[in-house]
Amino acid sequence: MIVATVDLNSDLGEGFGRWSLGDDAALLDVVTSANVACGFHAGDPPTMRRVCTRAAERGVSIGAHVGYRDLAGFGRRYIDVDSDDLRDDVLYQIGALDGFARQAGSRVRYVKPHGALYNTVVTDQEQAEAVVAAVRDYDPDLPVLGLPGSRLLEAAEAATLPTFEEAFADRAYTADGHLVPRRRAGAVIHDPDELARRCLRMVTEGSLESIDGRTVPVAAASLCVHGDTAGAVDIARRIRDTLVRGGVELRAFA
Amino acid sequence: MIVATVDLNSDLGEGFGRWSLGDDAALLDVVTSANVACGFHAGDPPTMRRVCTRAAERGVSIGAHVGYRDLAGFGRRYIDVDSDDLRDDVLYQIGALDGFARQAGSRVRYVKPHGALYNTVVTDQEQAEAVVAAVRDYDPDLPVLGLPGSRLLEAAEAATLPTFEEAFADRAYTADGHLVPRRRAGAVIHDPDELARRCLRMVTEGSLESIDGRTVPVAAASLCVHGDTAGAVDIARRIRDTLVRGGVELRAFA
Amino acid sequence: MIVATVDLNSDLGEGFGRWSLGDDAALLDVVTSANVACGFHAGDPPTMRRVCTRAAERGVSIGAHVGYRDLAGFGRRYIDVDSDDLRDDVLYQIGALDGFARQAGSRVRYVKPHGALYNTVVTDQEQAEAVVAAVRDYDPDLPVLGLPGSRLLEAAEAATLPTFEEAFADRAYTADGHLVPRRRAGAVIHDPDELARRCLRMVTEGSLESIDGRTVPVAAASLCVHGDTAGAVDIARRIRDTLVRGGVELRAFA
Amino acid sequence: MIVATVDLNSDLGEGFGRWSLGDDAALLDVVTSANVACGFHAGDPPTMRRVCTRAAERGVSIGAHVGYRDLAGFGRRYIDVDSDDLRDDVLYQIGALDGFARQAGSRVRYVKPHGALYNTVVTDQEQAEAVVAAVRDYDPDLPVLGLPGSRLLEAAEAATLPTFEEAFADRAYTADGHLVPRRRAGAVIHDPDELARRCLRMVTEGSLESIDGRTVPVAAASLCVHGDTAGAVDIARRIRDTLVRGGVELRAFA
Repeated sequence: MIVATVDLNSDLGEGFGRWSLGDDAALLDVVTSANVACGFHAGDPPTMRRVCTRAAERGVSIGAHVGYRDLAGFGRRYIDVDSDDLRDDVLYQIGALDGFARQAGSRVRYVKPHGALYNTVVTDQEQAEAVVAAVRDYDPDLPVLGLPGSRLLEAAEAATLPTFEEAFADRAYTADGHLVPRRRAGAVIHDPDELARRCLRMVTEGSLESIDGRTVPVAAASLCVHGDTAGAVDIARRIRDTLVRGGVELRAFA
Repeated sequence: MIVATVDLNSDLGEGFGRWSLGDDAALLDVVTSANVACGFHAGDPPTMRRVCTRAAERGVSIGAHVGYRDLAGFGRRYIDVDSDDLRDDVLYQIGALDGFARQAGSRVRYVKPHGALYNTVVTDQEQAEAVVAAVRDYDPDLPVLGLPGSRLLEAAEAATLPTFEEAFADRAYTADGHLVPRRRAGAVIHDPDELARRCLRMVTEGSLESIDGRTVPVAAASLCVHGDTAGAVDIARRIRDTLVRGGVELRAFA
Repeated sequence: MIVATVDLNSDLGEGFGRWSLGDDAALLDVVTSANVACGFHAGDPPTMRRVCTRAAERGVSIGAHVGYRDLAGFGRRYIDVDSDDLRDDVLYQIGALDGFARQAGSRVRYVKPHGALYNTVVTDQEQAEAVVAAVRDYDPDLPVLGLPGSRLLEAAEAATLPTFEEAFADRAYTADGHLVPRRRAGAVIHDPDELARRCLRMVTEGSLESIDGRTVPVAAASLCVHGDTAGAVDIARRIRDTLVRGGVELRAFA
Repeated sequence: MIVATVDLNSDLGEGFGRWSLGDDAALLDVVTSANVACGFHAGDPPTMRRVCTRAAERGVSIGAHVGYRDLAGFGRRYIDVDSDDLRDDVLYQIGALDGFARQAGSRVRYVKPHGALYNTVVTDQEQAEAVVAAVRDYDPDLPVLGLPGSRLLEAAEAATLPTFEEAFADRAYTADGHLVPRRRAGAVIHDPDELARRCLRMVTEGSLESIDGRTVPVAAASLCVHGDTAGAVDIARRIRDTLVRGGVELRAFA
């Protein structure tokens, strides 16, 4: 009996040329949505093809994981890009990935910003609007995946793009539903059992326990799991198994 | 009275970031097809948007001018890329450009290799097939523009892609219809009047005079004109005017 | 009769590969110090060699014009680089340029940050210290050229590096000696005569007139002139001529 | 009792930004010379600093592992670079690395080409001379490490640079002393014991057994060992231990 439905998303295709990162193949058996790097912060064309092909075979949704143009920084450094330039950088990345998605018989089904861009568009109106403008330019029906309450999702809604909220499997939240900053103790949850339990509760009860013990409502269409270490893949599998055993159907949101 | 039809193509969007090259706006009033750089040898996203937008406004066809990944070398150096990697690099570029073309209400209507890749696929079967595979992956009806007799066009035909041949307005030809190598004296024709006359003859008579005075048949769907200098734009205008006054209709081949 | 001495510095070597910017050769006959791009925001190795060789021939001092790693943005976008990474990016650039300077019989004689990095280290202590740490790592006697009152020069002094202050030939100043922000009307002075007169006064009287008509003391060892347009080179020549005729000796500060 | 002396060299610092490759720290306890990537095919500035610092601490010689400008291809693809450009690309890399080496209290003690450049300069006179010209420009006493019989070493000798020959621990040789091409069966030797024995014989007897059982003289100043996998580090350790137990002194050649 299915008691609830959720999507599992993870960052994939984060290698570049000779360098690989994470176990894309293993994760594609776990998640239902793949945030695929598009070449600006990671992700060379052969990697993009490989991930798109396998994602399509596995029925995993392909999302454009768009980032700042910064291979050396892996897209993790804020860049004060001009709005128009950012819009065009994002549009470029979506189009580039879509070629591989379509070649594999799928297509880019959503867009999610990566790294520093993800963090910036939580609060930065201009960069949020630039990302939204690019998505709209590409396809006015293309969904955006982001943080609840972010400027990104607000701007996407204002632009009538479909929006989806995600929660982080391994991050602690404050009582008012924000992420606990990484530098604070307890910000990242490492215990696999606790992680899996939290995820199941988020999906089936629509809530989680905040870092100070309060009940916080959660209405995420997708849970973000990590996969850049061997341990992370195991944890992602554990979360998946726990959800499935708990009656949760895993299904891509887009 | 229209006596013949031909396309004029030129390389555009060859700036990058702070650096510009050629007068894109002026050339887009002259040519009927724009070979637009896609970011690997030149062409940053804002430039790609600008060129695509103006090309669409002017009714100029947008072609993906795909090149080796080599900004420092402007795509003019042969790279011994693995076949699969080259295919994916080309697919990436086509997809990226198509996003801008479609945003402008057009789409990528053909693919033409740039620089060293253009020269390589005249004779290199493997790289020719890699380019063709990418075009096919993207769209099995997408035309390829290239040199008559090149491996590229042969491979494209074998893959049932539409193919179109181009002639060079400013290059001398041998009696058997090949380009005179650039290092030979007389390989490049500089006199605007002669250039314009040659072009008119190519289109209306289907022939040109070789470097040693023979008549060589030419059946090019498109004439390639250059635009990376101020003088080049004037010459391109002169060619256009001469063709039009000679009763030639200028029309994109795709 | 020499009444005063000053250095003229300008940004050079700002091309990259196929793309050129400014007239390096012309400017090297005007300035006494060349801020040479080192490959991160502009400046490919052959350009670096060419500029260093000519600078050495002309007796022009070579400075490392270090910038953020951002070719697409020409180093004009703030990047929130980690301090240690920035230090190493700067050290890399200094070393790379010094190879060319020494090959030409000279050496890197000072360091000046470029673009957004220049602006950032006016107020950002961490990035200022990162630049200073790199300079010190390379050579504890290597001078730093920067804006008076900047964190950069403070940090450089604290690290016992030689420091030199520059003034901008074409920028308006406030009554308290700060640059008028570019977005304000009158921030940039365009009239060549006025520019030349201002420069002469700065050097011979040690003062300038602020945007609101006050007298502001200036004690700059170097005047920064621009050269990225044909007009700019003419203005730089005019400034040089006016200074020389006014009895000012032009001499590199380092 | 020391019966012979040899250097062990290995490629290090081959990560880039977020991506790491090989266990630099472990290898720096094994080898006596580190071929350090300089940023063109791999090796970001923080990695260069880290490797140089540790190499200096361990008394390991630092060599500039110069490559084609090709991060996406890891320098493993031949590029038909113009001679002058290649010279300048190499000079740039040497200078950049030397900054880190000197900051660590050492300096670049030799130059060895990487990947496709290494292979190219075995037979390509022009590119060999370009590399040599760069080394000479930097320091006419800087040694070059390369393949015996290569154009590189010939050109380096002609330019009066010190030259050193290396042998490959894990590669089979033909009877006339050339490397067996990788695509041939038996080209790479995997058995650790056999590898270690071969190395000991090369150093103490000055010979190895060719793939067809002949005795081939070897007079290599350095043995190249690999370290880009965990297994490779173990093999490198095994080689080192076998050599040491066999009375061989491990000492950097430069």
